[in-house]
Parts: sequence; structure tokens; C-alpha cells
Amino acid sequence: MSTLTPTPSDKFTFGLWTVGWQGRDPFGDATRPALDPVETVTRLAELGAHGVTFHDDDLIPFGAGEGERDQAVKRFRQALDATGLQVPMATTNLFSHPVFKDGAFTANDRDVRRYALRKTIRNIDLAAELGATTYVAWGGREGAEHGASKDVRVALDRLKEAFDLLGEYVTEQGYDLRFAIEPKPNEPRGDILLPTIGHALAFINQLERPELVGLNPEVGHEQMAGLNFAHGIAQTLWAGKLFHIDLNGQSGPKYDQDLRFGAGDLRGAFWLVDLLESAGYDGPRHFDFKPSRTEDLDGVWVSAAACMRNYLALKQKALAFRADPAVQAALTAARLDQLARPTAEDGLTALLADRTAFEDFDPAAAGARGMGFELLDQLAMDHLLGL
Amino acid sequence: MSTLTPTPSDKFTFGLWTVGWQGRDPFGDATRPALDPVETVTRLAELGAHGVTFHDDDLIPFGAGEGERDQAVKRFRQALDATGLQVPMATTNLFSHPVFKDGAFTANDRDVRRYALRKTIRNIDLAAELGATTYVAWGGREGAEHGASKDVRVALDRLKEAFDLLGEYVTEQGYDLRFAIEPKPNEPRGDILLPTIGHALAFINQLERPELVGLNPEVGHEQMAGLNFAHGIAQTLWAGKLFHIDLNGQSGPKYDQDLRFGAGDLRGAFWLVDLLESAGYDGPRHFDFKPSRTEDLDGVWVSAAACMRNYLALKQKALAFRADPAVQAALTAARLDQLARPTAEDGLTALLADRTAFEDFDPAAAGARGMGFELLDQLAMDHLLGL
Amino acid sequence: MSTLTPTPSDKFTFGLWTVGWQGRDPFGDATRPALDPVETVTRLAELGAHGVTFHDDDLIPFGAGEGERDQAVKRFRQALDATGLQVPMATTNLFSHPVFKDGAFTANDRDVRRYALRKTIRNIDLAAELGATTYVAWGGREGAEHGASKDVRVALDRLKEAFDLLGEYVTEQGYDLRFAIEPKPNEPRGDILLPTIGHALAFINQLERPELVGLNPEVGHEQMAGLNFAHGIAQTLWAGKLFHIDLNGQSGPKYDQDLRFGAGDLRGAFWLVDLLESAGYDGPRHFDFKPSRTEDLDGVWVSAAACMRNYLALKQKALAFRADPAVQAALTAARLDQLARPTAEDGLTALLADRTAFEDFDPAAAGARGMGFELLDQLAMDHLLGL
Amino acid sequence: MSTLTPTPSDKFTFGLWTVGWQGRDPFGDATRPALDPVETVTRLAELGAHGVTFHDDDLIPFGAGEGERDQAVKRFRQALDATGLQVPMATTNLFSHPVFKDGAFTANDRDVRRYALRKTIRNIDLAAELGATTYVAWGGREGAEHGASKDVRVALDRLKEAFDLLGEYVTEQGYDLRFAIEPKPNEPRGDILLPTIGHALAFINQLERPELVGLNPEVGHEQMAGLNFAHGIAQTLWAGKLFHIDLNGQSGPKYDQDLRFGAGDLRGAFWLVDLLESAGYDGPRHFDFKPSRTEDLDGVWVSAAACMRNYLALKQKALAFRADPAVQAALTAARLDQLARPTAEDGLTALLADRTAFEDFDPAAAGARGMGFELLDQLAMDHLLGL
Repeated sequence: MSTLTPTPSDKFTFGLWTVGWQGRDPFGDATRPALDPVETVTRLAELGAHGVTFHDDDLIPFGAGEGERDQAVKRFRQALDATGLQVPMATTNLFSHPVFKDGAFTANDRDVRRYALRKTIRNIDLAAELGATTYVAWGGREGAEHGASKDVRVALDRLKEAFDLLGEYVTEQGYDLRFAIEPKPNEPRGDILLPTIGHALAFINQLERPELVGLNPEVGHEQMAGLNFAHGIAQTLWAGKLFHIDLNGQSGPKYDQDLRFGAGDLRGAFWLVDLLESAGYDGPRHFDFKPSRTEDLDGVWVSAAACMRNYLALKQKALAFRADPAVQAALTAARLDQLARPTAEDGLTALLADRTAFEDFDPAAAGARGMGFELLDQLAMDHLLGL
Repeated sequence: MSTLTPTPSDKFTFGLWTVGWQGRDPFGDATRPALDPVETVTRLAELGAHGVTFHDDDLIPFGAGEGERDQAVKRFRQALDATGLQVPMATTNLFSHPVFKDGAFTANDRDVRRYALRKTIRNIDLAAELGATTYVAWGGREGAEHGASKDVRVALDRLKEAFDLLGEYVTEQGYDLRFAIEPKPNEPRGDILLPTIGHALAFINQLERPELVGLNPEVGHEQMAGLNFAHGIAQTLWAGKLFHIDLNGQSGPKYDQDLRFGAGDLRGAFWLVDLLESAGYDGPRHFDFKPSRTEDLDGVWVSAAACMRNYLALKQKALAFRADPAVQAALTAARLDQLARPTAEDGLTALLADRTAFEDFDPAAAGARGMGFELLDQLAMDHLLGL
Repeated sequence: MSTLTPTPSDKFTFGLWTVGWQGRDPFGDATRPALDPVETVTRLAELGAHGVTFHDDDLIPFGAGEGERDQAVKRFRQALDATGLQVPMATTNLFSHPVFKDGAFTANDRDVRRYALRKTIRNIDLAAELGATTYVAWGGREGAEHGASKDVRVALDRLKEAFDLLGEYVTEQGYDLRFAIEPKPNEPRGDILLPTIGHALAFINQLERPELVGLNPEVGHEQMAGLNFAHGIAQTLWAGKLFHIDLNGQSGPKYDQDLRFGAGDLRGAFWLVDLLESAGYDGPRHFDFKPSRTEDLDGVWVSAAACMRNYLALKQKALAFRADPAVQAALTAARLDQLARPTAEDGLTALLADRTAFEDFDPAAAGARGMGFELLDQLAMDHLLGL
Repeated sequence: MSTLTPTPSDKFTFGLWTVGWQGRDPFGDATRPALDPVETVTRLAELGAHGVTFHDDDLIPFGAGEGERDQAVKRFRQALDATGLQVPMATTNLFSHPVFKDGAFTANDRDVRRYALRKTIRNIDLAAELGATTYVAWGGREGAEHGASKDVRVALDRLKEAFDLLGEYVTEQGYDLRFAIEPKPNEPRGDILLPTIGHALAFINQLERPELVGLNPEVGHEQMAGLNFAHGIAQTLWAGKLFHIDLNGQSGPKYDQDLRFGAGDLRGAFWLVDLLESAGYDGPRHFDFKPSRTEDLDGVWVSAAACMRNYLALKQKALAFRADPAVQAALTAARLDQLARPTAEDGLTALLADRTAFEDFDPAAAGARGMGFELLDQLAMDHLLGL
């Protein structure tokens, strides 16, 4: 079997809302019919996916009664059992209903905040029941467009309170479930709280149970702020907080495009896969994309398959890049080995006493050394293009 | 005296390199002569500034001998004594010389990293001697343009090592000096490490002496990533890490403009000043701007004075905004008071048992409530415009 | 009556779809009920507006029968007659229905293009009947996300064909109606054809009846590409093509925010109003904004009123700025008078023979002259802030 | 010989200032020695380039006397003769010297404008003498940071005057030389006049000799405004104005990066090459890039060679993509053939009379058709990655 054919061991997962997106956008109506979650499960399994993820409202219509709810869950579970598809992650829809127009965990209205917590907790129970070990929190409505409408410090207090309460809940329930915050700079709010990977990592440090909370970074979200996604993932890994990841494509700072993985910044995608594979990330590769609104359902499945194909192709190229002796020589020429060596393994006192470090150091000579980065980068290009 | 006339108690400070910028840019040569630091001190004092700040190389030419160095410091100190100007902050130039072309604390070359640390330590001694209590670290060259040229996780190890060593040094010396990291997303590197306030806050948590390290956020740097600066400052304050601040102006994601404070995003500047004054920030208001390259020295001093004038004008307006009974009513109508109330002061168990929080909650009714944000925001506009 | 109270002579107009926006966004459902066009007309008239504008589908539901259509038009016309509100502009909805998912005038499907033209022509008849003299064309779906899915040169042929046909139609009908193209860089398509003011101006030059076609630039659309809106309007005026204008607010390159006028880039709004008033633009000041989704209907009308108030306030300040003797002196000091003088009114030969122009010119001395721009700009700031 | 090895027939050209860039940036000094133009010519010829281009000041130091000038030209010409390298294009440096700090053709100071014209004319003579047929005009300093410092309409009058005078000059001299305007949105000015391809195309239509003036679009410049470069080139070709092109790389809206061709947006580069080759563009492929400041001279030549290699690789892939039967089938499935057919070849009257176009058209059915774009786009991805 080709290395480009996905299997469950590749850990590819998709949200119900991704292939199920009907194409409603700010200027247009749905172009596709709703997908039955059962059909989605079946098709994803056929395509070689490992799992499926969901918002509460993807599976169970908002406001459904208990009977309808139970029926929806039962059918879903049967489809999972029939296909072997896993549910490694679930999340809450805290953004579609008008009640969340000013936020959920940080809504000015206290009753909305309480409702949001209860809605979340309800779906955490279902997530745990279905075997999910990661619970994603995208606070898309936690933000503002008006300077005085949100006291951000106070809103962060409320956000911390929410995560502390949720952490308390899963601890008390004994669930094997960790939270993954998904940062985004804007859209649908003018400015969203915790706008980048960095802000979310910093926030986690203020929580009561920081060990329970990590990140679910999304390619396009960081790129909407012009940031290098692979760099952000590197800092997330460095902090031990890459709990989950959302893969898709984006073409720079504009509306959230959610292109299929590989589209948009292809070289960025290559460096991302290179990093995930080098670092031994072993969680799901979750595609949070929207099949183009121009497509019918055939196009939906084409694009879903392409996400996985592109990941596997980039993985194969990244492994070949790292194994290439010419690349290894170029990395040495670029002194990556020296970067890995501590700057002052001999300690501060030795550094201060070392005349070669300062008094006898020749900055001009050191500044004239070439770094060899263009050669190294072109080797990567050759691998990427398959030259 | 008008409230728009600055006095030292306003704590306005300027870098030697700001008014001293000669107008060299990527496409053009200097348009102004060099300013003698002594003249800068004198003029800033006359304009009502509180202090002056410097990079080592601003004061003492790179590579100067001991004699030249002592003379430069002596003249500077005399000017400070004569005018009463303070030196609340100093920093290191780790970016101009070719030796730093691949970074300083994270250069691939170990000898460059050692040199960068020693250069920094040398200027820390001078900073302490001159009474500075904040030492800014802008890692403008710590970054990359080529995917494989920097292993970001390893580079973060080196960056941590550097701050740990510097923290050890000031602790051992007994200096009353804290570090303030200045994040920036890009320029002069394609992508810089610690690109935003958030990334820098998160990094600090990994250090050996996090209490010694905070931030020096710069208006334009966050705006280069399209981020809301006041929101970033709010999170910095929330984390207790606003050690210093760089005020200037920027017109969105493009090259680093360093406009005078107030230029660029004026409403953003209003909300920033509102926040700093509301939060009781009592550190320096440091202008890190570049007088337009079109100006002669008269224009330089006009723009320096305008930075302070604009801050004072915005401060006056922000205070009036907060004191206005119509605003206070609008804030209540927008339920800012409810945001300040804990969501579940009664605890998790009570929340779970509260049927009004979920089972009996009417999302449609709650979603139909208007938030009153447009009225509140227009009141701010009226104050800002002086209507 | 205060100069901040709008009257019809101020020529403020609003689209039915602006105050009528129900708050549906890519991540959320409607937060407000539909507004009856008759109520909109009445309320706008009470607020002091001059006119109202509409897409066909705003007034007559898509797919309505003839009877329903006639009834809707009749009620609308009665409301116009009762209030005196004008309809200076109308436009076509060629973006909401799935049929337009790949474009309207440039859809790959020929039958969709023919339908789009007929839908447009039908509403042109109504526009003419209601007295509109401008017909706006926003080609929001004319674009692509996939490189090979649209041959842009061929698509421009189709776009030209469409405008040539529409020009032929209004000419044959004898309508007093001109077209105004509204450029936008992206959203809802990844890249839209005619993405900026410049691209649209250039396109018009290729048409059969360029005199019938001008622009309807929108503040936020240019700012989504990081462009200076006032500069774009200046070039539009210079080309004689400012047929209409869409006023709103935006905070840099991100999703299309459609904030109320004055919000977002306030200084940009000041320079825009200064330009429109200086240049004697006498067309409608059309607000194409979306009242924040957080608001109920009271907030809708607050924000509509604020759009007009902010325009009037900026107009008053711009007039005072231009009348201020200190400003006039600063403009002369900045040599704006010299810019207005031809460079070579004496002709090419004289320029070539003039030794003072080159051989005897002293670039260093000329380069040392200050331009006085910071002083001039700070005077504008003082006027804007009402200092 | 491999198809990836450049030969002069590929028409690759480089500016003296590209490989000759010494690495001076806004925050740092030169990291490389100056390159002798003669060495550049020799090395470029060895690498397989077709030609070399220059600013006056690249070849002849600013302010050089006649003797020094003649000598520099003579040595350059000898190197050209020895290597067979062509000079298809030249341009003027109207940005480095302080005299141009407020612009050249649109400087407020009339004497600066006259000097700029004379400086340009002088180099036009040299360009014609060296056989150049294109003269590029990048107005990098024609712009503003302060709202009132530039009356843009008046500045456009001056810009038109300049191009009219230059057109008169080359016409009178009988030079076989056309002008190519190079748009850029910002940097080094806050906002530059003629910021995009579109604005420049529109400007040309106002000139006295529009046939003499076309464009020299640069990849990174359009991408700094978030625009799709291939789309811009398509409109340029559509207008018959692609006189020259600047190839390089950029990572979205930030400072002007001038990466080697292929770096930055690789998929955008693929679609660009596909367009240039499909459209039969036969002018120079000019690389206007800056070898990374981290490199020594070896790295400079590596990066120059890589620009050509990447172009050739993308060309090979684009040709294979277009020749692939699966792609051709996908293009038909996506109805590109229908786009090429006129919408109303039967005329307006027939369209109006055609009931199938409107009354009997079924929008719902048409809206449900899939466009097949994801499949088409993934085929392009497969070709690009060499799968």
C-alpha cells in the first residue's frame, strides 16, 4: 500500500462540522445539504481516518429533548462501533446561538456565563462517555469590538474561573480528560481574548490546575496574525502543552479560510509536519477545514482525502530531508550542532573570566562567517518539490 | 500650567536612539546629523521629560577604548546631574553589528552567544551604576527566515539559559534591576522568537527566576501582528508583568513605523492610556519612536514634545470619560458590573444544582437582550473628539 | 440646530441591509428580528437621513411572485413619499443564493452568468423607476480560491462583457443611471477580481462606455488590504470616477468588519472627510455598516445616528483645520504651494538646459532642509482632539 | 543538460543591487563587502543568466566625476562584451540620497523634482547606450506618512507631468525604450502613491503617451498588501502592460523581504510561472531579491542560482500540469470551457428575450452543481510536489 494511503495508525481525525459544513458564509446561504453524522462516520472510516470529533450541537440539535438526544447519541455510537472510528476529542458550541453574542465564559451577563458552563459540562459527560481524552475550548465569542465594553483583566478573571471550575469537575468525576485551548486573534469578534498560542500558554500558568490544560493550535489562526505556525508549535512543545492540533490552510491575514491542509502556505505546512514528526508528537492529526463552498458532496470527500494525502506526502518528504547526508552536512555547516550545546555549561563565573568571550573576541571576523542558510533552505525546496 | 504641559512627575522618558535617529532606513541614508547625548539630555529636560534611556552603543561607540568610554559616561552623567534627568532603563545593542546577524543569545555560533552575554553584562553594570532599575531585552535578531536554520525548541533552551545567567548575575551583584523582554513579531528577522506579548509571558514562566523578568511591550510591535495593544497590556497587567512600556504609533501590519505617540491608531492609543491610568501603572511612559526622516532637528523636538502632549491629552479625556455619569450609566447598562461578579461564587456544586442556570434558562430571551455597546462606544468617541 | 444634527442636505444615506442586518455571521445565527423596509424608511427619515438604498432581495424576497413583488414595491414607495426620503442608489444581490457560489458575471457556468445579467437588469428597471441615478456593482463572488479554477484574463473578458451589456441596456432605455463598481480584496472569496480601487479604475478604461462607469469605494475594503483609503479616494477623484462612496470602519487586515463610521481608523476618517469636503464631492455619503451583533434594535438606531454625527463632527474639524492660520503657515512651510506648481512649466528643453537643475544643484543642502511635517500633523491632531 | 540548468535563452536577469546587497537593514550594518560590478557580470554569466540590470548609482557612485563615471561604464561594458550578458533594463536611484526624503517626481520641493528628472534622463541616456529597452520607475519615496503633507491629487499631477516629460524625451531622442512602473504599497514611505498593480495601470491611462508606459510588478510588493500576485499579473497581461517583472519571495504583509524566488508563497509562485508560460510572456525573468544577510558571498551565489533553478522547476511542473489528461478533464468538469464562451454572443436583445435565462431558470438546481475545484486543485498539488 502506498505511503500516501491513510490508515487509522496515522491518527487522522475530522470534526463533524468540517465535512459537514454546508457553506453558509457571511454573504451567502448553504450550498450543500446537511450530512447525517452516521454517514460522516462511515465515509471517514472508508477514507482511512482514525477518528471523528464533534461539538455538542453538531450531534444533537440545540434545544433537542432528551429522547431526541439519546437517539442521536445511540445512532452515532452504533456507527462508531461498526466502523471502529474513535472519538479522541469533543468540544462545545459556545458561539452559534445569539445567547453567546457577547461571549460565553466571559459574557458580561452572569446568567449567560453560568449557562455556558453548564452546557459545557453536559457535553464533557458525553465526551467522557464516548472515550474522548481531549476537550477543546475555542472561545470564539470571548472578545470585543468596543474599547469599554469588556474590562479585559476582569474578563480574564472570569475565564480563569471557568477553567478552574471545569478542572474541578473533571477531577471530581475522575475523567481521563484534558482541556486544549484553541487561540484565535479575531473573527467572529473584532479582537478575541487569548489571541495567539503565546497568550494562551501564558494564561494556563495562572490556572489552579495548569497540568490539565494545554493547547489546540490551529494553522490558520496563527497565520491570520502573520505568525509562523511551526515556531508557535515549537514553543508549545517546549512548554509541554501540545495536547491537540488543528490542521488546515490559510492565505495570510484575512478572514478565516479553513482551506484543506496543504493549501495556502505549503512551505509552512512542510516545516510543520517536519516538526511534528521530528518531535514525536503522537496525538491526533485533526483536520479543522471547510471544503470549499463551491463543491458538492463529492468535492467534500475529495478534499477530506486530500488533507490526509498531503500530510502523508509532506511527512515522507520531511523524513527524506532529515535523512539526506547533504542535508546533514548543511545542518552542520550552519552550526545547528553548536546551537544544541549550552552557551555556558561551565557556569557564569567561567564565562565572566573567559577573555576569549569578550576582550579577545573578534566580532568582525565572526560577523564575516557565512551561515550557509540559503543552501540548507534550497535543499529543503528540492525535497519538497521532489527534484 | 496647562494639563498638556509635561513635567517630570508624568514620568515621560525617551531613548537616546529615538530623537537621535538619523533617518537611515532600508532604502536610504541618514538625513540628519548625529545628536550628542549631552544635547539630547539637555533638550529633553527642557521639554519636561523625566528621563532618558540608552543602548550601550548609543552612548559609547562600538569598539571604543576604555578612555573614550569613561569620557562618554562622564559627560553623560554630568548632563544628567545638571538637568536632574533620570536613567530608569537601559538596554543592549545586540542587533547592529554583523556579528549578531544570526542572533545574539540564540545565535547558532556559541562564541557569538558568549560574546552577547558578556556585552550585555558589561552594560548591566553601567545601567546599575546610573541608577536604572529596568533592563530591557529586545531580541530583534533572535529568529529565522529559513525553516531548518533554527531549531526553535533548542533556541528557546538557549534563550532561557541566557536569562537564567543574567538573573544569576544581577542577583549575585545585588543590583536592584529587573529585566523587561520586548516582543516583536518580525523585522529585522522574517520571524522573531517570542513574537508577541503572549509568547514572552509564557516564556518567562519557564525561567529560573521568573520574578526578575517581565515585559516591555511596544505599541507598534503588537499592531504589526494585527493585535489589540490595550488587550495585550491588560493581560500583561493581569500577569503582574508590566515592568516598562514603549509608546509609539503604527498603521497596521507593515514595516515597523515607530510613529510619534498618537499617530497611527488614535482610538487604540486612547484605550491604552485609559487602561494605564485606570490600572495605576506607575512606571515610565517611554517613547520609542522615530521622528520622521523628512524632518530636521527642529522637527525632531516638535515630534518629541507632541508624544508627551498627546499622552496628556488622552489621559485628560480618559479621566473625563470615566467620570462622566452618562458613561457610568452606560457601563451599567452594558453589565460591566456583572462581569466583575464571580460566575460561581457559590461553588461548582451549587452551579450544577441550579436549574435556573440550565434547565430553566431561556437562551432565546437572554440572546435578545441588547448589550448597549454602541452607545457606550459613541460616548467614548464624543469624549475623544471633545464634542 | 447644532452642526452635529444631520439634515437631508447632508446627503446621508443608508442601505436597507445595513440597519437591517440581523447579525448572522460565519459562526453565529441572527440576533435581531428582520426589519420591515417601511419601518427603516421611517426611522431613517426621523434621524435626518437623505436617502435609502437597496439590493433587489432586500426589498423583494428572492423568488417572490409578481403580486408579492408589486406589493413590496408599493409599500416602499408609499413610505418614501410619506417621508421624502430619496433612493439615490440601488444594487443587485449576486452573492447570497447558492447559484452564485462561483460568481455571477464571471461564473464558469454560462447559464449562471446569463441569469445574473437578467437579475441585474430587472432591478435596474426598478432602480430607474424609483429615481436612482447610481447603480452599484459589488462583485463579491467574482473570484477564486483555487489557482486553476478561474482563468483571470478570460474572467475579465466576461466581466467587461457584462458591463458593456449593462451599459448598452441603460443607454437604450434612456435611463439617467451610471454604474459604480465596488472593489474588495477578499471575503467571501479568497481573492476577488478588481481587488482595489486601482484595479477597478484600470478595468473601467477597457470598457465600451467608460463614461458610464465609476467607483463606489468602501472604507473597510481598502483597509483590508492595508491601503490608505483617503489616498485611494484622491486617485479616484483625480480620475473623475468618484460616483458614490461607502463609509464605515475597519481595524486593519482581517475579516470585513463594517463598523460604524468613525470606529476603527479615526485619523483615516478625518483625512477622508477633509478630502471629500475639500474636493467638493457632492454625492451621497452612504453608510455601509453593520450595527454590532451585540445590539438590539435600539442599538441599531444609536449606531446609525452615530455614523452621521461622526461625519459631521469630522467635517467641522476639517473645515476648522483648513481655516486655521497656523495650519496655513505650516502648509506653506511644508511647501505644498510648490507641489502645486508645475515642475517644468517652461518645458523639457528649458529643463535640460537649466544648470541649476542638475550640474549646479546641491543635493546635500536640499536634503538637509526640514519638511515641517510633524508640526503640520500635530496641528491636525490638535484639531481632531479639540485641544 | 538538465532542464533545471539555466541558459541565456531562459532570459533570467539580475540587478547589480540584488547579489550586490551588502546586508544593511533598518537595524543593522553591512555584513558583506561591496561587489565589483565586473565580478557580478562574470559570475552571473557563469551561472547561466541572460542579463544584468542597474540603477545609475549601482554602477557609478553618487557624485562621481566624469572621469570616474566613464571608467566605471567602460569596465562594465567590457565585462558585458566579454561575457555576452545583456542589459535589458535600467533604472534610477531616486530614494537613497537624503535629497529624495520627501519624494522625487512628487517631492514638495520643485527643485528636487527638477533634479530627479535630470538624474533620470541622464541615466536613460546610458540605458539606451547599453541597449536597454525597458526603463523601470520605482517611486519608493513618492508617498507620505502625514495626512496633510501631500495633496495626493496634486502629487498625481506632478507624477503625470514627470512621465509625460520622460516620454517626450525618449520620443525625441528616438530611443527604443519603454517605461515600466513598479508599484509598492509602503516602505520606505508609510503609504506610497500607485500602491498596487491596479493603481499603476489606472494611472497610465491618464498619460500623454500611455503606449510608452507599462508595469514592472514585483511578487513581494503585491503580497505586502495581501493581494494574489498571479491575479494581478493576469490583469496586467489583459491590459497589455506586462513590460517587465520582478521575481522574488515574501511571507505576507510585513516588511519587504525580497526572498529568493520560490521562498515565501510557493504555490503562488507555481501559479505565477504557470501564467507567464501559458500567456507566452517573452520578456526577462528578473530576480529582484536580496540574498539573506546571514550569508557570505558563497551564499549569495547559491541563492542566485536557486532563483533560476526554482523558476525552471516550476515551469517544468506547470507544463506537465497543463499537459496531463486528468487535469484537462478536471478543467472541463470545472467548466473552464464555458467561461471562455461569451455570455451573450447572441446580443442583448436575445438575452432579454430568452426565458431560459431567467423566467424558466432554476437557480436551486444550478446552485446544487458541484464545481470540482478541490479535485482540480489537488491535481495541481500533486504535480507541484512531484507525487
